Amino acid sequence: MARLVMKFGGTSVADLDRIRNVAQHVKREVDAGHEVAVVVSAMSGKTNELVGWCKEAAALHDAREYDAVVASGEQVTAGLLAIVLEGIGVNARSWQGWQLPITTSNAHGAARILSINGDELIKRFKERGEVAVIAGFQGVHKDTGRITTLGRGGSDTSAVAVAAAIQASRCDIYTDVDGVYTTDPRMVPRARRLPKIAYEEMLEFASLGAKVLQVRSVELGMVHNVRIFVRSSFDKPGDIDPHAEPPGTLICGEEEIVEQQVVTGIAFSKDEAQISLRRIADKPGVAAAIFGPLADASINVDMIVQNVSGDGQTTDLTFTVPAADYERAADVLAKARKAVGYERLDGATDVAKVSVIGVGMRSHAGVAARAFKALAERKINIRAITTSEIKFSLLIDAEYTELAVRTLHSLYELDKG
Amino acid sequence: MARLVMKFGGTSVADLDRIRNVAQHVKREVDAGHEVAVVVSAMSGKTNELVGWCKEAAALHDAREYDAVVASGEQVTAGLLAIVLEGIGVNARSWQGWQLPITTSNAHGAARILSINGDELIKRFKERGEVAVIAGFQGVHKDTGRITTLGRGGSDTSAVAVAAAIQASRCDIYTDVDGVYTTDPRMVPRARRLPKIAYEEMLEFASLGAKVLQVRSVELGMVHNVRIFVRSSFDKPGDIDPHAEPPGTLICGEEEIVEQQVVTGIAFSKDEAQISLRRIADKPGVAAAIFGPLADASINVDMIVQNVSGDGQTTDLTFTVPAADYERAADVLAKARKAVGYERLDGATDVAKVSVIGVGMRSHAGVAARAFKALAERKINIRAITTSEIKFSLLIDAEYTELAVRTLHSLYELDKG
Repeated sequence: MARLVMKFGGTSVADLDRIRNVAQHVKREVDAGHEVAVVVSAMSGKTNELVGWCKEAAALHDAREYDAVVASGEQVTAGLLAIVLEGIGVNARSWQGWQLPITTSNAHGAARILSINGDELIKRFKERGEVAVIAGFQGVHKDTGRITTLGRGGSDTSAVAVAAAIQASRCDIYTDVDGVYTTDPRMVPRARRLPKIAYEEMLEFASLGAKVLQVRSVELGMVHNVRIFVRSSFDKPGDIDPHAEPPGTLICGEEEIVEQQVVTGIAFSKDEAQISLRRIADKPGVAAAIFGPLADASINVDMIVQNVSGDGQTTDLTFTVPAADYERAADVLAKARKAVGYERLDGATDVAKVSVIGVGMRSHAGVAARAFKALAERKINIRAITTSEIKFSLLIDAEYTELAVRTLHSLYELDKG
Repeated sequence: MARLVMKFGGTSVADLDRIRNVAQHVKREVDAGHEVAVVVSAMSGKTNELVGWCKEAAALHDAREYDAVVASGEQVTAGLLAIVLEGIGVNARSWQGWQLPITTSNAHGAARILSINGDELIKRFKERGEVAVIAGFQGVHKDTGRITTLGRGGSDTSAVAVAAAIQASRCDIYTDVDGVYTTDPRMVPRARRLPKIAYEEMLEFASLGAKVLQVRSVELGMVHNVRIFVRSSFDKPGDIDPHAEPPGTLICGEEEIVEQQVVTGIAFSKDEAQISLRRIADKPGVAAAIFGPLADASINVDMIVQNVSGDGQTTDLTFTVPAADYERAADVLAKARKAVGYERLDGATDVAKVSVIGVGMRSHAGVAARAFKALAERKINIRAITTSEIKFSLLIDAEYTELAVRTLHSLYELDKG
């Protein structure tokens, strides 16, 4: 007997047929003797419809009212799934954020979960064998009593937070991929699904744009040590043996990963632009003069590389922004030129970022050096390098992305089963 | 300065354009210096969509889950209207049933309002000039904390209950008719809109199928002495002078109606069927043997006429059922024949019920007698008669409905302005 959280996204609950399929997944776990809490998103398309109405209602809309409107989508799915479950003989009830309650901060539209009371759910598991069907993505502000939403993808976070609150042995995220891969299988056919990945590695993957899980949910899982299992919602419920290990990727603590590889995976992003500011003054306040105006313009700055000054007076600064923001960033910097005092702005939009991730880097020297050598042998020029404890990222010409990713994937023996 | 409740049904909030129109109605009253609470229904069609999903989810669905799903419709409208109001400079916030709270009984799907806390609303009127936008049709069960709905048309009841809770000087029901008429203007072109009608008269009208207001809302208005004003939602907000008396019908206490007529209006229903049971035993328990099985079959029995027995042993019993239920009712009674012991069942489906309503009947004798005489002069046969303190109903052949209604409308001087 285990206690499970099962999370289903909008595509998995898009209509009544799919909700019935979800109910069969739930029934399978209940029949296997598990205590189950289900977290659901809104039916696919519903959130967009509700958001569209809010935007039509007023260009500048009150985020509190937006939340009250948009949270209704998950409420509907939760009620419908509870009805379907009861229809097939599974004892169930729906819970909205305010009913549990799931209390959050006051940041409407992007609230953070503060606490979840899981006592009532556990009591009902024990006393009634009741499945809890919880509306994801939402909560209630602890003081005002108004409905909050967690922002897009927030249902993942809801699921992990519920799992922490009820001390679930696993939080199963049913999604449209069957796990986390060493790299994108569309680019590298030999990419393999990872049976396990450490929280920190997954955080890097998620931050780099892997759309499997919301970053916040991984953070929360790491803090509360919730074992998150990414699995496919396309598997037919009847084909799954609830007593066997299902296919998927477990996101867990490093200590649970016995055969840790040095490198876990390769992530990449083609939608990058590089900006280099030449001969800026090497003095305090310059970085603020550059990145302040960019932040004000909501331009997300990623890799930042600044060399130690050669002459002690001026230096070069390179960073990346999303390719779509390149023109705007150049404009912002042209206006700030006087305050920053750079000599020249060099830019490039045809660049890509390739990142190598693995907690094993912490205990292995020379991991990055091997990459530099392998790429040099392929005549791939590295424009910039940033490193962190468990990751290094390389900025290269976009046309070499596939070659670089395949080279690194083989180099770190990720091709092998 | 007055305190108003304004209620808008599903057609009035069917899309963003109509919600914007509603917002202009609200702004007009706010600009006139009034304190305003708005009660809204779900966008037209939304409730049907949600109900359809519940039915698709399971034939026998948990009414508590049904309520959680269906109540989301009003939640969306309330949020959107609040956004639109704020967009045009009117301070507003939305309230869901559980937020005020509006506590109700546990009868999910047809709950009764038990209490509404209006203190916070009044405080916000005073301190912030804030318009309250309240989701109609819903509440929360006082013990379980689960969402309840009041049943179809429940938003009228929500509005009247809110008006009672905040001691509103008037509850304006914006609807697709501009008031209550002496009879159906489609049948009698000389029908007039009543400027005022007493609660009890309106209750009779509503019970007889006039679809202007839900019966329960009129009852609640009567108990709490809430002045209910039925008016048209089609009037353009800009065309209305907030300081002039708007066109519509005020439902109020008798004491507020100075020039009370003897008869206020004529209601009629053509969808009736008559059933007469001949020579049933005149003994205790027979009525139960007849009406029990009909109630079990959910057949609504209306007019019931039983004569005093002539021979002391048997009597005839006549009653009406909805025409659509006639065949079913005859079947039920055929099966119950042994228990009831009637000699013969006579039935007719081509009958109509015409009702004459007026609180003035209490103090005027012979009101019904004049009707009998006038109909006899027109050779209209009366099949059955039932009377109450402020109403009498006549069962006649359906083909004479229009003639009878027009005759009575003139007889009681309702044609005159």
